[in-house]
Amino acid sequence: MLMIPGPTPVPEKVLLAMAKHPIGHRSSEFSQIIAETNAGLKWLFQTQNPVLALAASGTGTIEAAIINFLSAGDRVLVGNNGKFGERWAKIATAYGLEVQEITAEWGKPLNPDDFAEALEADTSKAIKAVIITHSETSTGVLNDLEAINKLVKAHGEALIIVDAVTSLGSYNIPVDEWGIDVIGSGSQKGFMLPPGLGFVAVGDRAWEAYKKATLPKFYLDLGTYRKSAEKDSTPFTPPVNLYFGMKVALEMMQAEGLESIFARHNRHKEATRAGMKALGLPLFAPDANASPAVTSVVPEGVGAKEICALMKKRFNIDLAGGQDHMKGKMFRMGHLGYVGDRDILCAISALEAVLSELGHQAPASGVAAVSERLQKG
Amino acid sequence: MLMIPGPTPVPEKVLLAMAKHPIGHRSSEFSQIIAETNAGLKWLFQTQNPVLALAASGTGTIEAAIINFLSAGDRVLVGNNGKFGERWAKIATAYGLEVQEITAEWGKPLNPDDFAEALEADTSKAIKAVIITHSETSTGVLNDLEAINKLVKAHGEALIIVDAVTSLGSYNIPVDEWGIDVIGSGSQKGFMLPPGLGFVAVGDRAWEAYKKATLPKFYLDLGTYRKSAEKDSTPFTPPVNLYFGMKVALEMMQAEGLESIFARHNRHKEATRAGMKALGLPLFAPDANASPAVTSVVPEGVGAKEICALMKKRFNIDLAGGQDHMKGKMFRMGHLGYVGDRDILCAISALEAVLSELGHQAPASGVAAVSERLQKG
Repeated sequence: MLMIPGPTPVPEKVLLAMAKHPIGHRSSEFSQIIAETNAGLKWLFQTQNPVLALAASGTGTIEAAIINFLSAGDRVLVGNNGKFGERWAKIATAYGLEVQEITAEWGKPLNPDDFAEALEADTSKAIKAVIITHSETSTGVLNDLEAINKLVKAHGEALIIVDAVTSLGSYNIPVDEWGIDVIGSGSQKGFMLPPGLGFVAVGDRAWEAYKKATLPKFYLDLGTYRKSAEKDSTPFTPPVNLYFGMKVALEMMQAEGLESIFARHNRHKEATRAGMKALGLPLFAPDANASPAVTSVVPEGVGAKEICALMKKRFNIDLAGGQDHMKGKMFRMGHLGYVGDRDILCAISALEAVLSELGHQAPASGVAAVSERLQKG
Repeated sequence: MLMIPGPTPVPEKVLLAMAKHPIGHRSSEFSQIIAETNAGLKWLFQTQNPVLALAASGTGTIEAAIINFLSAGDRVLVGNNGKFGERWAKIATAYGLEVQEITAEWGKPLNPDDFAEALEADTSKAIKAVIITHSETSTGVLNDLEAINKLVKAHGEALIIVDAVTSLGSYNIPVDEWGIDVIGSGSQKGFMLPPGLGFVAVGDRAWEAYKKATLPKFYLDLGTYRKSAEKDSTPFTPPVNLYFGMKVALEMMQAEGLESIFARHNRHKEATRAGMKALGLPLFAPDANASPAVTSVVPEGVGAKEICALMKKRFNIDLAGGQDHMKGKMFRMGHLGYVGDRDILCAISALEAVLSELGHQAPASGVAAVSERLQKG
C-alpha cells in the first residue's frame, strides 16, 4: 500500500490499459488518443492553452518550464523553502541565470511579503521570472501561489513559473483565470498514473518570451512539443503505454469532476492531520499552509525511521522518510491521486497500532479523529 | 501487428509485469530491481561501465550522450546520412558546438575514408568528438561503426559518441572491446519494451572529458545518474513500471543469449531482404550496409503509401512510411526486438498478397524466398 507522495496508487483499470500491446506512435489510432488526452489535460489544467506532455520526470519537466523562456544572465527570483525549491535554484544556476532567492525555513511557507519587497525593489524590471514551488513535497508546505502570483502580475515584466508537481490535480489552480504563465506537473502525482510523463502548460506571455529566449535546448524545447500537439502528435517517440493509461485516468477524473477531486484531497488532508494530532504526532507544516498531497510529521519520543519500518513490516504500508537534513527525523504520508477515505482511515489506524507497539502514548484515538473528519464530507 | 522500427513488439509477460502496481522508487524492493536491471544492461552493452537509464526518448538520450562531454565552441565531426544523423548535428548546433559534417546521400553508408581524411587533417586535435549513427532508422543503412571507431582511436583526442538506438541488442557491438566512449539506445527498440527509457554507457575517457565539459545540463547530467547507479538508485523518479518490464525482458534476452539474438536479427534481415527482392521491391540500403533492425523499400510502379494502407486494412500490419523527403516514396519494415521467424514470414506473405491486389507483378514468390533463407538458420 503506497502512502508516499509519488509514485501514488494507480487504479486497476489504468494498469490494465497500460498492459495493452504498444501501437505505432504515428498511427491514426494513436493520434486519436493524443487528441483525447490533450483535451483531458486542458480540462484538468483549467486552460485553453495546449498542455505539453514530455517523456521525463518532474525534474526534467520543470527544467523545461524554466529554460524555454530565459536567456543566460537573466535574473530570476526563486522561492526556496524545501528540496524542490532548492533544486530549481540549482537548475537556474546551472544554466547561467542570475538567481535571487527568497527563502523560508523548511516547514514554513514562503512569505508573500518577501516577494512583494523584491519585486517592488526591481524598478528596472531586471527580474524575468519568478519560480515557485506550489506544494513543497519535501516538507508538506503549500505556498501561497495565488498571493505570489498577484505580486508577479503587479510587477508586469516577470513571468511566473510554477512547480505544481504535487498540487496539480489535488488543489484548485485556475491556470487561465489566474494568468499563470508556465506550470508543470508529473504523471505519478495527482494523475493516478505511474511515473514517466511530465506536463507543462504555457500561456501567451510565456510564448512571447520563448521567442527571445536563447538558453540551449533540444529535447526539452517546448516549441517543438507545441507544434506537434497542434497536429495531435509528439516530436519524439512518446511512452505509448502510459498514454493508454492516461486516457483511462483522465476519463475517471472527468467522471469524478474537478470540484469533487479537490474536495476529496482537502478532506483527506484534514482527516490525516486530525489523526496525526490525536496521536500526538507534531505536524511539520502549519494548518494554513498544509499541502493537499502530503503530510509531514516530525515525531517526538519515537523515531521516524522506526515508525516507517514497522508500518512496512506489520502492515506493508509504504511511508516516505525525510530528505536531506530531515532524513531520519521526519516521515511523510502521501494522500494524493487515487486515494479514498478507506485508505486514510486504514493508514492512520495502522499508525496508531504501530505507535502503540513502539510504546508511544497517544493522547487520543487517531481513528476516531479521522472518522469524525471524514463524516463531515 | 507492429512491423515498424519502434515501438516494437513486446512479449506478453513483459506487458503483464508492467501492469503490476507501482512501488516506491526509494524502497529496498525497487533498489533490488535496479541492481538486477543494471547488471542485465551491462551484459547487453558488453561493458563493465554502468549503463545509465534515463526517463527520456531516444533523442533525449542521445542529447545527453553528446552534451555531457563537450563545451561551447568545441568542434565535433558528425556523420549525417539520414534523419537521425541530421538531428544530432542540429543538437550540436543548438548547444553552440562547431559542427563539421561528413555526409552521404540517404540510402548510402557513410564512407570511412571521409572520416579518415577529416581526422588526419585535424593535426591540432580540435575535433573533440565524432558523433555517428550506427543504424540509421530513417534509411535502413548500417554505418561501419567498427571502421570509423578505429579511425577515431587513431586520432587519439576525439571521443566517439554512438547513436545505437536501433542497433544495440540487434547487432554485435562489443562496447568495451572496441573502446566505444559513449553509446546510447532506447527501450522501444531492441529491448522488447515500450518506449519511455533511454540508456547510455560511458567509458573512462568520456568520464575524464565530462569533468571539463561546461555545456549546461541538469536533468540530462549523466554524472548524477552515475552517482545514483552506484547506489542502485536513480537521481529522479524513474518510470517504475517500465523497470518491472525491463527486468523480465532482460531475463528473456539473457536466456536467449547474445549470439542467438544477433544471429536471429541477421537471419530476419536477410530473409526480409530476400523476400523483398523476390517480390521485385527495390531495397534502399545496399546489402553490405543493411540494418539488422529495419529494411527500407522504395517501390516502383506501385505506391508506398498504398502498400502501407492496404497492409493495415487487409491484415492489420503496421509498416512505417518514409520520413522528410522520402515521405510517400518509401516504406520501412521493422524486424527488431521481439520478432520471430513466423512474423517475418507472415509480413512478407501479407506484402505478397497486397502487391497482388494492387496489380504489381512480383517476379517470384516472396514466401519461398523468406522460407529458404529462414531454413538456413
